[in-house]
Amino acid sequence: MLILMAREASAAQVQAVLETLAAAGVKAHLQENPEAPSILAPHASQAPKADRLEALEGVARVVPITSPFKLASADVTAARTVVPVGKARIGGEDLTLVGGPCGVESRDQLFTVARYVAEAGVPLLRAGAFKPRTSPYAFQGLGQEALDLLAQARAEFGLGIVTEATEVETFDAVEAVADLIQIGARNMQNFALLRRAGRSAKPVLLKRGPSATLEEWLFAAEYVMSEGNRQVVLCERGIRTFADHARNTFDVSVIPAAKAITHLPILADPSHAAGRRDLVAPLARAAVAAGADGLLVETHCQPHKALSDGPQALLPSDFLRMVEDVRRIHALLAEARPTYVWF
Amino acid sequence: MLILMAREASAAQVQAVLETLAAAGVKAHLQENPEAPSILAPHASQAPKADRLEALEGVARVVPITSPFKLASADVTAARTVVPVGKARIGGEDLTLVGGPCGVESRDQLFTVARYVAEAGVPLLRAGAFKPRTSPYAFQGLGQEALDLLAQARAEFGLGIVTEATEVETFDAVEAVADLIQIGARNMQNFALLRRAGRSAKPVLLKRGPSATLEEWLFAAEYVMSEGNRQVVLCERGIRTFADHARNTFDVSVIPAAKAITHLPILADPSHAAGRRDLVAPLARAAVAAGADGLLVETHCQPHKALSDGPQALLPSDFLRMVEDVRRIHALLAEARPTYVWF
Amino acid sequence: MLILMAREASAAQVQAVLETLAAAGVKAHLQENPEAPSILAPHASQAPKADRLEALEGVARVVPITSPFKLASADVTAARTVVPVGKARIGGEDLTLVGGPCGVESRDQLFTVARYVAEAGVPLLRAGAFKPRTSPYAFQGLGQEALDLLAQARAEFGLGIVTEATEVETFDAVEAVADLIQIGARNMQNFALLRRAGRSAKPVLLKRGPSATLEEWLFAAEYVMSEGNRQVVLCERGIRTFADHARNTFDVSVIPAAKAITHLPILADPSHAAGRRDLVAPLARAAVAAGADGLLVETHCQPHKALSDGPQALLPSDFLRMVEDVRRIHALLAEARPTYVWF
Amino acid sequence: MLILMAREASAAQVQAVLETLAAAGVKAHLQENPEAPSILAPHASQAPKADRLEALEGVARVVPITSPFKLASADVTAARTVVPVGKARIGGEDLTLVGGPCGVESRDQLFTVARYVAEAGVPLLRAGAFKPRTSPYAFQGLGQEALDLLAQARAEFGLGIVTEATEVETFDAVEAVADLIQIGARNMQNFALLRRAGRSAKPVLLKRGPSATLEEWLFAAEYVMSEGNRQVVLCERGIRTFADHARNTFDVSVIPAAKAITHLPILADPSHAAGRRDLVAPLARAAVAAGADGLLVETHCQPHKALSDGPQALLPSDFLRMVEDVRRIHALLAEARPTYVWF
Repeated sequence: MLILMAREASAAQVQAVLETLAAAGVKAHLQENPEAPSILAPHASQAPKADRLEALEGVARVVPITSPFKLASADVTAARTVVPVGKARIGGEDLTLVGGPCGVESRDQLFTVARYVAEAGVPLLRAGAFKPRTSPYAFQGLGQEALDLLAQARAEFGLGIVTEATEVETFDAVEAVADLIQIGARNMQNFALLRRAGRSAKPVLLKRGPSATLEEWLFAAEYVMSEGNRQVVLCERGIRTFADHARNTFDVSVIPAAKAITHLPILADPSHAAGRRDLVAPLARAAVAAGADGLLVETHCQPHKALSDGPQALLPSDFLRMVEDVRRIHALLAEARPTYVWF
Repeated sequence: MLILMAREASAAQVQAVLETLAAAGVKAHLQENPEAPSILAPHASQAPKADRLEALEGVARVVPITSPFKLASADVTAARTVVPVGKARIGGEDLTLVGGPCGVESRDQLFTVARYVAEAGVPLLRAGAFKPRTSPYAFQGLGQEALDLLAQARAEFGLGIVTEATEVETFDAVEAVADLIQIGARNMQNFALLRRAGRSAKPVLLKRGPSATLEEWLFAAEYVMSEGNRQVVLCERGIRTFADHARNTFDVSVIPAAKAITHLPILADPSHAAGRRDLVAPLARAAVAAGADGLLVETHCQPHKALSDGPQALLPSDFLRMVEDVRRIHALLAEARPTYVWF
Repeated sequence: MLILMAREASAAQVQAVLETLAAAGVKAHLQENPEAPSILAPHASQAPKADRLEALEGVARVVPITSPFKLASADVTAARTVVPVGKARIGGEDLTLVGGPCGVESRDQLFTVARYVAEAGVPLLRAGAFKPRTSPYAFQGLGQEALDLLAQARAEFGLGIVTEATEVETFDAVEAVADLIQIGARNMQNFALLRRAGRSAKPVLLKRGPSATLEEWLFAAEYVMSEGNRQVVLCERGIRTFADHARNTFDVSVIPAAKAITHLPILADPSHAAGRRDLVAPLARAAVAAGADGLLVETHCQPHKALSDGPQALLPSDFLRMVEDVRRIHALLAEARPTYVWF
Repeated sequence: MLILMAREASAAQVQAVLETLAAAGVKAHLQENPEAPSILAPHASQAPKADRLEALEGVARVVPITSPFKLASADVTAARTVVPVGKARIGGEDLTLVGGPCGVESRDQLFTVARYVAEAGVPLLRAGAFKPRTSPYAFQGLGQEALDLLAQARAEFGLGIVTEATEVETFDAVEAVADLIQIGARNMQNFALLRRAGRSAKPVLLKRGPSATLEEWLFAAEYVMSEGNRQVVLCERGIRTFADHARNTFDVSVIPAAKAITHLPILADPSHAAGRRDLVAPLARAAVAAGADGLLVETHCQPHKALSDGPQALLPSDFLRMVEDVRRIHALLAEARPTYVWF
């Protein structure tokens, strides 16, 4: 249930409601909304009846949660979630850009890319230390060595680090370095990994599985959130269809569709969707035009030498132009209109 | 084969090449490119050998056509096709917008919509006279009566008319009124209809079938073009996938992918892709940001009373805002950069 | 509405009901069911009220039709439709096999194949005279010449002829020769063609479109049936998905799913589904095991020389073995169990 | 590389080849084939050149492995893999049936089902102890309690146990009880879990992911095999497509397509593919007719009370009839023909 407090409710009144719920053995979570606080109790079967709660001072109204997404649903809070990562605030007023190579390959490679990413004013660096690969015989990432290099890159360039956790076993190591922990598309329903991420203090970037419906994706977010971690960022990266001109079909419509039913922010990864360099910038622009809160884009100084996914990495010059374009589109859409009105 | 003429080739030299081909029984087509003319002979098995042709005066080079799309391929011409329709030039520097209701329902309905479409400076009006419907028991369009109303709307508002031809039998009637003849998604491989459209003097808007690959779509264009009609405009309207948050999955990546291999212009129809009103404007913006040459958008003054597809029609106010947004995005991307450089 | 007559209702009583409906301007259709006759009036908005009809002598009960498929739905008749074609009765107790080459290429080719098809006891010969092809430059069939050869093959070998009508323009010519007129997958929603087929006295084989839902497929059947032709046979031929080991994904589950909601018979075309020879026999066996009423299988004496779809045609020896296998599976499932009990 | 030994090669000669490879630091694996032994060295970049190996006594020929599936490819062995599980030999001459409820719910429920499964002569019992569920709020299985009950059921009824390992953390517990460890569809690319399974002495049942190509599926098998566990059984359970008449689209063609390129056995799970009871038996028959080595079928004594997937569980009577039908189809196809000739 969702307990909407009156605008003028005092802290003590809020506290009294929380205590009433706790006394009944019901877990609840205080939400500081723009207008008035609310208290979210996702599982309220043991809670006092609505009229008893509405009789408490400071309570405006009690609303049942009918959405199956008790925590991720836009029904349960008036505010949109903003996830701070390094200098970025994902879901806030700014567009959040994340750039970097597919995988960390060497200090040189990482630092060269990190330098021009940072110089472009992009606040977050992405690069894989552990790479989930279709074939067991393909390059699987440099592991801990890569994590160390990422930590150095953060120190050197002031960039927040986005990197993937592929398994529970190495989660701690990734968590120690990452500012935003990526859960990859293949792991969207790796529930043990989701639960571990849910117990992390670091925010989580949850990629959509290649054949996941929006509903299944939000249930995956719910796995993370129900363990206590509310800092979840969604990321669309293309779905699997019959179409063969791109590696995946970038489902741009899921961006506004997600915004309509969840308060979580959503990024787009045009690189994995496209799988070919020439489509990345158009898809990046499309995502931002459709309302994405930001982008994850692969860029590499020498894509032809990349150990993974080279064909989809943008050259530095193309990356910079893409950055400029999407910022201008975002600014244009934000201009002279109340926030989110156009969703 | 493609015969590239020298920049300074005279009209007489061009004529001589055409006659040589004709003498060999080979059909050929003169293309006026920006730099120099070229002669396209899609089926050249009976043509003189390349070296014999290259020996003719004014011939710069003879290139074999390896693309299976002998006429639609970007390999066969340096120029992009521009299709003039009413006051619009689809594929030219301006963004071409097409607005209107799904089907013509009455004079009142059509004229009300046409008025605000025209006032928004949108040059083309779309509305179906013959509606292909999944069920034989659903509203099938007003037919000839609708065509008459469309002709009146053109006279009254100065709008070019875009309307669908659903069968060979009624093609003549549609052709008499339409400025741009739509071939719907279900008919993308209705080869008799494509051939009939190929014999029309009116340009053709070819929607992508819901499960068509880019290659199959271009072959459908090739059916039209090989009958003589080179004025083909492509239109993406969503593909069929497992995703269930929208009626179809809008495949925004096909826009730049098509531009990479064909010289034909491409529009997007976010309305049929979305199937729900709230996704239409985001998809419209995405399409333009990805490089679409224009949009086909459904709008209705009273969507809740529409006889077909009401849930996806934009209200007038939302339509106007969408128009403004996409124009600004298009202008921004066109600014200070050579045309198409960003593809 | 569906008017169920009493078992003992007389012909005169049935006639009286039909006249009452006709007097009200309602079209109705008498159905001879195993147990008792029924009268089907798909569009009954102008019909007398149910209680008035139930008051007529011989009427047992009046049932509203809630299915959107007024004619194809299994709700409207207790009997399954059996479609006689040549010596075959599709949907009856026997498995109906149809064999032959993709297209008619020459008298020799057709007669060689027809001979071993006939010798295997297969009652129907399939071969295309008009071939719908993705590319306008591919072999499009021999047209009228092929139809003449098919007529000769029928005379010579006593085989019923199954061949495709691709357009309204050449429908008459196909209709004159075919015993079962095929509507191809690409034309499943070519409504003009469906309506023309609906006005034919010949039965219709309606292939499922590559991205059609079961519901859309039945609506296509409804287009044919609502014009008066109740002799519709469905045919599954694979759908378009991401899977790339076969040309299409053979959707074997649609066979029992269709049987659950329609009284129309259903065949399977494993050849077009597979697109590769080695998968055809396994899919043929699977279809029959799942309850298909028969099969359409491509076979060619010299597949490597076939002008179309050679890679999927079975060699004569493989065809004969497949025929034997599926007959044995069908016999086994029919054994000692009441008809259709296993659906 | 694959080193084919002469038919008459002695054990000492085989040993000499293995030692030569070991001396070069190359891992190799002796395969006992029906005709002659062969030695498989999946990664042979450091191996002596082919001509040097061919000079060794007893070596018939050295063949490079061009398939990306170094261990799963049918190219690397003349024999098909047979995986013994309890009394069953999956991939052998008999059809292997596995029956049971979706999840273990209670001793009563499990034993009731196990009893009629065993009485039907079905050798293996399936039931989940750990259930991966889309929603974190759905029944997640009884865990260790369920494993204990499964162990008791094995003792009581002599059934081999098939149950799913959903995560590395609880793998040991599952491994201690299971005779065949299932890796579920959602975990097909959970590489940590695959590697853990690869280090198990128990055979592995690898379900196909809902959007996995055949190639990706075999790479997943390769993950398991490359860790040392060659006992992998594939299982098709339906893929995700637009079709909406069943929960997934059962891809029956992948059965013969897999058999064409891998030596691993393959089962089918018609229950998860269908998602509705009435389609399960037809799909089961189809799978066996297409050449599946066996089936995994859900059955429940009281499906309407099942805590998960009740709508797809067969009632006992339907289960028994399905068992009888598929056995007869299998026997019929095995009759009077050399094994596998029909693949």
